Amino acid sequence: MKREIPVMSLQRLPIYLNYLKSLSMDGTSYISSGAIARALNMGEVLVRKDLAYTSAQGRTRVGYVMSELIEALEDYLGCNDKKTAVIVGAGELGKALLAYGGFENYGIDLAAAFDNDPAKIGTLVAGKPVYSVDELASGVKKLGVKLAVICVPAERAQEVADLLISCNITAILNFAPVLLRVPEGFNVRDIDVAANLAILSSGV
Amino acid sequence: MKREIPVMSLQRLPIYLNYLKSLSMDGTSYISSGAIARALNMGEVLVRKDLAYTSAQGRTRVGYVMSELIEALEDYLGCNDKKTAVIVGAGELGKALLAYGGFENYGIDLAAAFDNDPAKIGTLVAGKPVYSVDELASGVKKLGVKLAVICVPAERAQEVADLLISCNITAILNFAPVLLRVPEGFNVRDIDVAANLAILSSGV
Repeated sequence: MKREIPVMSLQRLPIYLNYLKSLSMDGTSYISSGAIARALNMGEVLVRKDLAYTSAQGRTRVGYVMSELIEALEDYLGCNDKKTAVIVGAGELGKALLAYGGFENYGIDLAAAFDNDPAKIGTLVAGKPVYSVDELASGVKKLGVKLAVICVPAERAQEVADLLISCNITAILNFAPVLLRVPEGFNVRDIDVAANLAILSSGV
Repeated sequence: MKREIPVMSLQRLPIYLNYLKSLSMDGTSYISSGAIARALNMGEVLVRKDLAYTSAQGRTRVGYVMSELIEALEDYLGCNDKKTAVIVGAGELGKALLAYGGFENYGIDLAAAFDNDPAKIGTLVAGKPVYSVDELASGVKKLGVKLAVICVPAERAQEVADLLISCNITAILNFAPVLLRVPEGFNVRDIDVAANLAILSSGV
């Protein structure tokens, strides 16, 4: 991560970016933090603080130049550095992610999936190849991948993580509902979909 | 939410529960917070603090009775209250969630999906019916649903949220990459998959 940014701020940056891109405004127009705050139902001070982590420079009274703000957000989020990622596990969720177009907005190309199911190996999902997990090490090396997404069942996730780390992967997005044991400082983010729904529903 | 529990603690409770269930131990065995901490590579004090939010009672030196701890976690997470949820948007992600079995562990039955695509309406996904979004209000009422998952494209998410709120849905899990405007105190959790991967990759 570039600077010390609170994770909550970091998670809001894509929301600002999506919002700005949804406006069909001229790139030379100005947009104020107040206008963004009102549109997204957030506090103006919060918006201004979040945007200050990027290189965007707001001007007193007029705000930010639209194209500069979009560029600063894209730059901060690494949208302009093309990166390749692979998925391990081509089950329903893995397939959904392969088919999902949203990663391209962030410069991420989900290039391939790896699975251990003979029925899946050799198939294409949304035009992306599914390889055998036996080819993971060679595939990761060939593609020059540093980023991987784990979509395997919970009981297989740790061994997959160990394998990925041994292949010099440096960041993992983990959908398996387990806490992965990784080396100190290794970059992991967890998305436990069912737990999120459970947490929501426990307040219902 | 039952008591004031930090969101980070809450997110770890399903991890403890998954871990305990993965051990094929006798329910009358004891398990200590230290053993859980070592297995999950976490601090023991943290584990003990997290578990203290549930009704589980650890005993000095021996720890928790396995079956009691599992029950306390399940109870806290509402796994034993059967709840029904619906999905709006039966695209790739919506279909993956319908097919995903992990919700049952939390007592959540994803009963149906709603979509506006005539090609999808009337089909079954993993045995679950896909209805027209025009039937959302009547379907939600008939099923007695309070919980909904939004899997529609970003530009449709707000209107879907408004519709759900007008149908007396009380909690939304939102996969669309936008910040939903909801009434004060309304329960929303956001999962922006692409943004999570982008945040990870910006540190690669």
